[in-house]
Amino acid sequence: MFIGFIGLGNMGSAMAARLVNAGHRVRVWNRTPKSLEGAEAAASLTALAEADVIITMLADDHAVRATWHALLPALRAGTIHINMATVSVELVRELTPHHTERGLIYIAAPVLGRPDAAAAGRLHIFAAGPPDALATVQQLFDAMGQKTWNFGDRPEQANAVKIAANLMLACAIEAMGEAAQLVDSYGVARKDFLEMLTGTVFAAPAYKIYGAMIAEERFAPAGFKIPLGLKDVRLALSAGEAAHVPLPFASVLRDNFLDAIANGDVDLDWSAISKVAKRRAGAK
Amino acid sequence: MFIGFIGLGNMGSAMAARLVNAGHRVRVWNRTPKSLEGAEAAASLTALAEADVIITMLADDHAVRATWHALLPALRAGTIHINMATVSVELVRELTPHHTERGLIYIAAPVLGRPDAAAAGRLHIFAAGPPDALATVQQLFDAMGQKTWNFGDRPEQANAVKIAANLMLACAIEAMGEAAQLVDSYGVARKDFLEMLTGTVFAAPAYKIYGAMIAEERFAPAGFKIPLGLKDVRLALSAGEAAHVPLPFASVLRDNFLDAIANGDVDLDWSAISKVAKRRAGAK
Amino acid sequence: MFIGFIGLGNMGSAMAARLVNAGHRVRVWNRTPKSLEGAEAAASLTALAEADVIITMLADDHAVRATWHALLPALRAGTIHINMATVSVELVRELTPHHTERGLIYIAAPVLGRPDAAAAGRLHIFAAGPPDALATVQQLFDAMGQKTWNFGDRPEQANAVKIAANLMLACAIEAMGEAAQLVDSYGVARKDFLEMLTGTVFAAPAYKIYGAMIAEERFAPAGFKIPLGLKDVRLALSAGEAAHVPLPFASVLRDNFLDAIANGDVDLDWSAISKVAKRRAGAK
Amino acid sequence: MFIGFIGLGNMGSAMAARLVNAGHRVRVWNRTPKSLEGAEAAASLTALAEADVIITMLADDHAVRATWHALLPALRAGTIHINMATVSVELVRELTPHHTERGLIYIAAPVLGRPDAAAAGRLHIFAAGPPDALATVQQLFDAMGQKTWNFGDRPEQANAVKIAANLMLACAIEAMGEAAQLVDSYGVARKDFLEMLTGTVFAAPAYKIYGAMIAEERFAPAGFKIPLGLKDVRLALSAGEAAHVPLPFASVLRDNFLDAIANGDVDLDWSAISKVAKRRAGAK
Repeated sequence: MFIGFIGLGNMGSAMAARLVNAGHRVRVWNRTPKSLEGAEAAASLTALAEADVIITMLADDHAVRATWHALLPALRAGTIHINMATVSVELVRELTPHHTERGLIYIAAPVLGRPDAAAAGRLHIFAAGPPDALATVQQLFDAMGQKTWNFGDRPEQANAVKIAANLMLACAIEAMGEAAQLVDSYGVARKDFLEMLTGTVFAAPAYKIYGAMIAEERFAPAGFKIPLGLKDVRLALSAGEAAHVPLPFASVLRDNFLDAIANGDVDLDWSAISKVAKRRAGAK
Repeated sequence: MFIGFIGLGNMGSAMAARLVNAGHRVRVWNRTPKSLEGAEAAASLTALAEADVIITMLADDHAVRATWHALLPALRAGTIHINMATVSVELVRELTPHHTERGLIYIAAPVLGRPDAAAAGRLHIFAAGPPDALATVQQLFDAMGQKTWNFGDRPEQANAVKIAANLMLACAIEAMGEAAQLVDSYGVARKDFLEMLTGTVFAAPAYKIYGAMIAEERFAPAGFKIPLGLKDVRLALSAGEAAHVPLPFASVLRDNFLDAIANGDVDLDWSAISKVAKRRAGAK
Repeated sequence: MFIGFIGLGNMGSAMAARLVNAGHRVRVWNRTPKSLEGAEAAASLTALAEADVIITMLADDHAVRATWHALLPALRAGTIHINMATVSVELVRELTPHHTERGLIYIAAPVLGRPDAAAAGRLHIFAAGPPDALATVQQLFDAMGQKTWNFGDRPEQANAVKIAANLMLACAIEAMGEAAQLVDSYGVARKDFLEMLTGTVFAAPAYKIYGAMIAEERFAPAGFKIPLGLKDVRLALSAGEAAHVPLPFASVLRDNFLDAIANGDVDLDWSAISKVAKRRAGAK
Repeated sequence: MFIGFIGLGNMGSAMAARLVNAGHRVRVWNRTPKSLEGAEAAASLTALAEADVIITMLADDHAVRATWHALLPALRAGTIHINMATVSVELVRELTPHHTERGLIYIAAPVLGRPDAAAAGRLHIFAAGPPDALATVQQLFDAMGQKTWNFGDRPEQANAVKIAANLMLACAIEAMGEAAQLVDSYGVARKDFLEMLTGTVFAAPAYKIYGAMIAEERFAPAGFKIPLGLKDVRLALSAGEAAHVPLPFASVLRDNFLDAIANGDVDLDWSAISKVAKRRAGAK
């Protein structure tokens, strides 16, 4: 297939490389020009319009909206747009009719996994959109991910899943932060406590990765910074608000992310919200 | 060793049977008389005073306190008391000096695991107390558990760990409840969502067990009822209060357990607090 | 003075009438054409550009932004724009430089008070903006309000005050709802309880007005509907987020407003979030 | 009447003095011996048993329980016990049957007001208990208070009211703390903001008193210290738990009082929980 790929950050470049390796023709574009081995560099954003499928892997709603308004007028009817970024439900609800009006097809396919998983083609892909189009692009998902999870025919459904999954990660971090502080205040090493848990009932990647960081209070270099965590919580609160779903854990998280930022931890990994529990308990 | 064992509920009887099978002399006592194959039945609570080690596996602070005040005067100096129940930090702080005054030794050793794990000797045992005494009773722990985790020489430390671990389980349930409701409100089956998560980043026993119940909304028969969940959250809040540790997630849980009880779900499994998220979102 | 007045809702029409009565020349415009005795009707939005001062009293950010983009190109340098609506801090931060670039002056002057207070010229006006411009329009404030409270020279400061004041009203409602449910569950009439409080330590308008509604559980007709309450809480959360201020009470309110909407109370007065406390306590 | 009065703290001594001045025979007892002009000093606690009415004005559940168990065996059937302290619903539920069994009458009559109001006979008295007994002691209430509010015939009802009223005071403090921090972060003086509010919609004693302290950030000398605030919130949470009433605002308060204590503000007035909002917003 001929793919136009927009967004060559850590995730995007690894994903685009997988498509190149799978034998697809890939033309890439990035806001700050960047090349990718085996791929064509688009002279302009609109030069992507020749592709059959456009994949966007951008940072946030704002970047997607800006890029899309620039590209949209150039696209031919029938083009499939796969938005693989973690964006708001609102954005999806705004973009979907824009696509339909012009005969374009919108697929949401946010991913679970970090750059190393992307490079290894080990992502989990959450897909939603028109079934025919999903079938057409499955070969692309196969090149990028270890498994595609289909969540429905309305694109926003995949985004809701991704947003909810990230909320659960943030909840796991906060739960470990509170519980670790509780035992710490009784003189138990947080490391001993978290190693026990992640070796028993919480023996899962989410807990092992963040549990180790919280145990050692080692929050730099950041895999995912606190302001991004706040962004994700905001996406959850906003998706909840649109569907009238109270989310009290997300509300606690929001306040704790703000507390962390206000108290200077803006560059630390999001597992550093565990420092909030510590500071509030008067521990140094 | 000669062991006096108090409390033959589902957990206690399985644990006492493991001690019998390991060749120890075991004399048992239960509030409502009950026998255990291979064990002696104590004619009275004070008949346990001949044992070298007393193990209590009772329901709550109240049962431990009542039993202990009745037994205490009969005990000889040097007797080791292993309290394996999940009790409050306050109770431990109250009991420890009572023991010391009389030359008794207090060990806290709450356990992680359910009756089937107890029957198989697969419990995880969280121990804290005087190191010599811990060494003496290690053979008993080996008969009952797959692993003993030592958390310090002050008994309350083991209780803090157990309370914190239970808090994390409750947090995992609430997080799944909120996130599942969020995707549900977007038309995604909670089962699809939770299967994906418990097959990927949350592939841990805590999530698999409760995730399946929440996915299928099957909360009876209850493995652990909602009022017990509330009791555990109260233990966490109370341990937090004694050490001045704010626990906002535990506070949310408290309110949700009360909501569940007030709305008639008193006999359901504690994973049924996910119904609170559902009801608050206006879903039937 | 020659005033262009935009927005003739319940509040706006009462405020504009006060200006007419004070002898000012007033030209009015409303999205759905509406006349006001003693005022000129603007043939178009841009016909307001002849005025010295433009006052906007619109429903929300969206209405202000739309109106403003249409009017802005027509305005002369030196025109003063007084935005008296309750809008977000973000909007103010967006509009202020737009004004400055074109030599226009932006004043924020949201008000406290309801339509009857507006009709009687008894509003409290929270003003912020360039001191000279504030002095110039003080005569207009005097015609509309009983008192002008000056909160600084940056317009957003007045909006922050208005948003924070509304947050406090919502907090008072929630506090009464929780406390009334608590005594109700002990068989004390909520009316007896609230009459005592609003006759003693809480003898203030905010408590008397909403206390009476909560006491009698009479939430229609609505003075201010639940979705507007949610909007106000969202403004507070958003202002807090921009300044990194955690607001845990506002977070609780957000979830309770969503709960109320999800459970069908969308047309009731915002004091009806007290029904959430009641429903969660299992009371009918 | 012949009154035995127990507890001569700031409140108790002022209240007992009112009874003396009204011409009643008053015999007083205090844990640390203390005299009161015009009153007899009891040689022992049991010397109070000759009185017709026993009034207790003690610090907390613990003090009431200890005192009561010592006095109870000495009392004659028909004696009326008026407990005017702020105690838990649990204590009342425990004491009421103790009284009934022995033919004693239990009245709950907690008060609203501070020592100066007590000295001036300006307290508000919340009374509940058997109607006949309430009628008998009304003359005593008239000597101590400006108004008696009758909340039912079960003593716990008056306690629930007092606990709920204190919860509302704490909520008002927290609301002011959050809102003041919000405007402060936008450069508005908290004093300007709070003066406006307490001069308009929040012109009530509760807001004026605590608003002034929060505005000036003057939290010493303390009128009511933070640990007492925590105690009151705990009474509310505990009364809510007994009746299955979720209280999310009380939960937030609990965590903030703990935060304040953990961060060293144990001797400040309870309005100093506003410092928590400030610290969490990163302000100095």
